Amino acid sequence: MIYITRRERFNAAHRLFRPDFSDEQNLEIFGKCSNPNWHGHNYELFVTVKGEVDGSTGFLLNLKKLSKVIREKVIIALDHKNINIEVGFMQGKLASTENLAVGIWGELEETIISLGAELHCVKVSESENNFVEYFGK
Amino acid sequence: MIYITRRERFNAAHRLFRPDFSDEQNLEIFGKCSNPNWHGHNYELFVTVKGEVDGSTGFLLNLKKLSKVIREKVIIALDHKNINIEVGFMQGKLASTENLAVGIWGELEETIISLGAELHCVKVSESENNFVEYFGK
Amino acid sequence: MIYITRRERFNAAHRLFRPDFSDEQNLEIFGKCSNPNWHGHNYELFVTVKGEVDGSTGFLLNLKKLSKVIREKVIIALDHKNINIEVGFMQGKLASTENLAVGIWGELEETIISLGAELHCVKVSESENNFVEYFGK
Amino acid sequence: MIYITRRERFNAAHRLFRPDFSDEQNLEIFGKCSNPNWHGHNYELFVTVKGEVDGSTGFLLNLKKLSKVIREKVIIALDHKNINIEVGFMQGKLASTENLAVGIWGELEETIISLGAELHCVKVSESENNFVEYFGK
Amino acid sequence: MIYITRRERFNAAHRLFRPDFSDEQNLEIFGKCSNPNWHGHNYELFVTVKGEVDGSTGFLLNLKKLSKVIREKVIIALDHKNINIEVGFMQGKLASTENLAVGIWGELEETIISLGAELHCVKVSESENNFVEYFGK
Amino acid sequence: MIYITRRERFNAAHRLFRPDFSDEQNLEIFGKCSNPNWHGHNYELFVTVKGEVDGSTGFLLNLKKLSKVIREKVIIALDHKNINIEVGFMQGKLASTENLAVGIWGELEETIISLGAELHCVKVSESENNFVEYFGK
Repeated sequence: MIYITRRERFNAAHRLFRPDFSDEQNLEIFGKCSNPNWHGHNYELFVTVKGEVDGSTGFLLNLKKLSKVIREKVIIALDHKNINIEVGFMQGKLASTENLAVGIWGELEETIISLGAELHCVKVSESENNFVEYFGK
Repeated sequence: MIYITRRERFNAAHRLFRPDFSDEQNLEIFGKCSNPNWHGHNYELFVTVKGEVDGSTGFLLNLKKLSKVIREKVIIALDHKNINIEVGFMQGKLASTENLAVGIWGELEETIISLGAELHCVKVSESENNFVEYFGK
Repeated sequence: MIYITRRERFNAAHRLFRPDFSDEQNLEIFGKCSNPNWHGHNYELFVTVKGEVDGSTGFLLNLKKLSKVIREKVIIALDHKNINIEVGFMQGKLASTENLAVGIWGELEETIISLGAELHCVKVSESENNFVEYFGK
Repeated sequence: MIYITRRERFNAAHRLFRPDFSDEQNLEIFGKCSNPNWHGHNYELFVTVKGEVDGSTGFLLNLKKLSKVIREKVIIALDHKNINIEVGFMQGKLASTENLAVGIWGELEETIISLGAELHCVKVSESENNFVEYFGK
Repeated sequence: MIYITRRERFNAAHRLFRPDFSDEQNLEIFGKCSNPNWHGHNYELFVTVKGEVDGSTGFLLNLKKLSKVIREKVIIALDHKNINIEVGFMQGKLASTENLAVGIWGELEETIISLGAELHCVKVSESENNFVEYFGK
Repeated sequence: MIYITRRERFNAAHRLFRPDFSDEQNLEIFGKCSNPNWHGHNYELFVTVKGEVDGSTGFLLNLKKLSKVIREKVIIALDHKNINIEVGFMQGKLASTENLAVGIWGELEETIISLGAELHCVKVSESENNFVEYFGK
């Protein structure tokens, strides 16, 4: 069993808030992250997959294919987008890094399996001081 | 003459566009950076000041004071804000990294002088692949 | 189950030595790290907590609260301090990174639980080439 | 149980290819990584060992000893070398990062045990975007 | 006058040697970098251009265009290549980082001018500990 | 004219204080950096030299020689040392990063010239947020 990790990046705007709360209530709970005019981040996404090494290639998975899958399923949807407004798999959810990691897992899981590997971890880094990891359960 | 540099960070939303252009025209010139729903970045700001070392402290400038000035004059205005809408010194300008660097210089220059040093460079990094430097002329 | 990690930093002096040994014996075992005049590091601390996402906030834990706890319980005690002399939870212990990680775990565990999460890992990085991880058992 | 990690680095040339394939076939499977004239990388190696802290030193393992073992068993064999041609433990294998991680594990496992610790993970980073982890099974 | 910098990366093999010297002589002068079987690096290239901000775009230069030029003129020639054998602008030169920086300058200078800016600096980083800068004179 | 930069690192303890001041006065001026029990840092040192490329080697300067000079003249004196007490060229000076950069310049200048190059810049980074540059005048 071997684990390989691919890093991809996306820049996006978001806002932490509940639509059923007033701006004042949102400010109290979410602080400056609730700014109604949005703010944004350079997100880093680390996708770790696991499986057996294929003796005929020396690979668990061709990294170019893994990168292509991540870009098509996740990065196109998020990069230079507003997470609250424009990202299908985040609709109806709070745009937190936790929910982002869980959402990205959902976008990737099946395709990774179809490539002959298993999704192990989705790690989303929001800043140099904060990151979230989700292992699918 | 010695040069000291302080790094500060801010997370902000922005959009590259001209209000006199249509969304289509803006897309053509500014690409995905023109997204009407905004996107954002973790900006890094490096402020370099120069001057003589003060023999009584061993400092050009107390870094705590320099950090305080940068935070009060620049970071509070930019952090978790929308650069196009909410940042006074960016009003009426395109929200490019170039204009941001020039704008930040304007916010800092006088106060740095009042601290007994000279502003040498404002460097703004928008991503790990891009940064802008402005030397005041 | 989601994992979130917060990075905090502290700069401290320390010395690796046993008080029951001579300087020569300490030099033999601990090398230049036993310098009786101390040396120091920019330590990086990564605290990982785990738990369920709170549907009402999208958070496992408010990162501001987590950061505040780490600062109050750990960083204030360590930052710009001499680990051997001034840090209560390190008294009577060798000032190694291993003992530091275990000690920091002890300072944080209960408070993290009181915040509704579980402490998962304390990682202490002493330099770009060395780090220690402790998982509580 | 504590985990300590040591980073070491090596610069090497390699080529991804199967000797039983033509250059065209290798290009199709391995892309530009199959260049018959080689290419190369600054590899980063992270070796994680685990065990109990020794009360008499505060260490799981003296990091200088761990570094010396990694250098003698692995880095000397790989640094400024051609992985396909010159590295004994990689002969007859595809020079992928996956196989490199497994091969390095084999070079280190016994010696780590003789030092009183257990090898936990070999992580090999080929670029800022890709890394492989192997846990020995 | 504003300065913008774009980072691009390439992975390549090379060897430091003089064809008129024996392997022994090359080893004496160039050390392990003279390995006849090659070694390689993850090079980082930082291209800095300078000029006036265009009031109609807020840019000195569209970074996408700058990136495209660097890729077409330099990265395609170097990435996953053997610098000694396959890179046109390095033929007949020692494959040192110094010569690489000067060679890349030559490939870029005219095209940068045709884009309305001026080439200011080519910086080539061979490892985390070494880099070379060339300012064109 | 080409510029090459070598990074070296040292870990040291220090204290910012004036011996003619009381601890209270030092605390007022230098803050927590004046802790009488010391604190410390992982310093990074970047030494930039300039000169002409030697056609027979492709080098401005053999980086191994440059590294050796920096280690022998500077790193041995500083690494795992107390800057205030044990470093000859810092005696009688405040142990600030500014004075460290100027002091390191003095230790290196002549030897760099004897190697056929010119010292251009000494950069000392005390933390990820602060660094000092000295250009010799």
